[in-house]
Amino acid sequence: MNGKLTGKKIAILATDGFEQAELMEPKKNLEREGATITVLSVKTTPKEIKGWDKTDWGNKVKVDALVGSAKADEFDALVLPGGQINPDRLRIDKDAVHFIKEFVETGKPTAAICHGPWTLIEAGVVKGKTMTSWPSVHTDLLNAGAKWVDKDVVVDGQFITSRNPGDIPAFSREIVNALAA
Amino acid sequence: MNGKLTGKKIAILATDGFEQAELMEPKKNLEREGATITVLSVKTTPKEIKGWDKTDWGNKVKVDALVGSAKADEFDALVLPGGQINPDRLRIDKDAVHFIKEFVETGKPTAAICHGPWTLIEAGVVKGKTMTSWPSVHTDLLNAGAKWVDKDVVVDGQFITSRNPGDIPAFSREIVNALAA
Repeated sequence: MNGKLTGKKIAILATDGFEQAELMEPKKNLEREGATITVLSVKTTPKEIKGWDKTDWGNKVKVDALVGSAKADEFDALVLPGGQINPDRLRIDKDAVHFIKEFVETGKPTAAICHGPWTLIEAGVVKGKTMTSWPSVHTDLLNAGAKWVDKDVVVDGQFITSRNPGDIPAFSREIVNALAA
Repeated sequence: MNGKLTGKKIAILATDGFEQAELMEPKKNLEREGATITVLSVKTTPKEIKGWDKTDWGNKVKVDALVGSAKADEFDALVLPGGQINPDRLRIDKDAVHFIKEFVETGKPTAAICHGPWTLIEAGVVKGKTMTSWPSVHTDLLNAGAKWVDKDVVVDGQFITSRNPGDIPAFSREIVNALAA
């Protein structure tokens, strides 16, 4: 453990269908730096969510708390993994969208990868921001008023965005940088 | 066979992850009226696409032709099934988006259900149109300039849209009405 993030609390918000690597790998990378990770979700029965491993259902991850009972000011950063199914389900959950809005208002680092930015669109927070995403989310981000660039990681103010699982090292690095700054 | 659609040619455009009922049931309903259905896709190896049956992969459907070699003016209507994965993949395929644009320009009935309207957003054809969809696509449709209503089926000019598999009877009925008119 290098300890750059010792004492930092990071929330990962996800539900069934999160792209497995996009939750597991940033989690591992951030924990390695000493951060405490809390997995928030929209359901706690069962108390786990099911990942999506490229082309089919994958491994499960323990849910630590319901997003509806979580407080935005308890966390130092928010991470939004992708997957096609996960953000599509989160964005129609009022508690999830409310938490994201509230968290973004704190001004603290908010990181989304792949299809993750869909929930930022839903929270109405992308206007005027420069971001990247999985290519299918490109047009939705533009229509929501964001600027879109094709880059492994894009940092604009509090927002950190990446395109796909291949970008996870750069994505994790910028979350660490934002929190260690 | 009632024959209201005898001689009519209808294209269904889909790829892996189409919501199974949203392809199979309209197909059956339209064939019952005498229509000839052509399943177009973005891949022909293997020459079939895999459905999504509510919570997991489902049955396969034969692909009749590549969308890249199909001609919009050969068809009397276009049907776009939903599913989370299917339109998400189609919208990043240039041939699929080009075909949809070209088809919409013909002014002929264009029907999309559930997450299907995502590809209409990608084709840039929803501005000023009144539409419905799966709730997660609501904000993306609004941001693209559409008006959104919560109704089993919405007909606005050439566009026929529905929300979910429960709306398939109304969706099929309006496609028949549009073609039989």
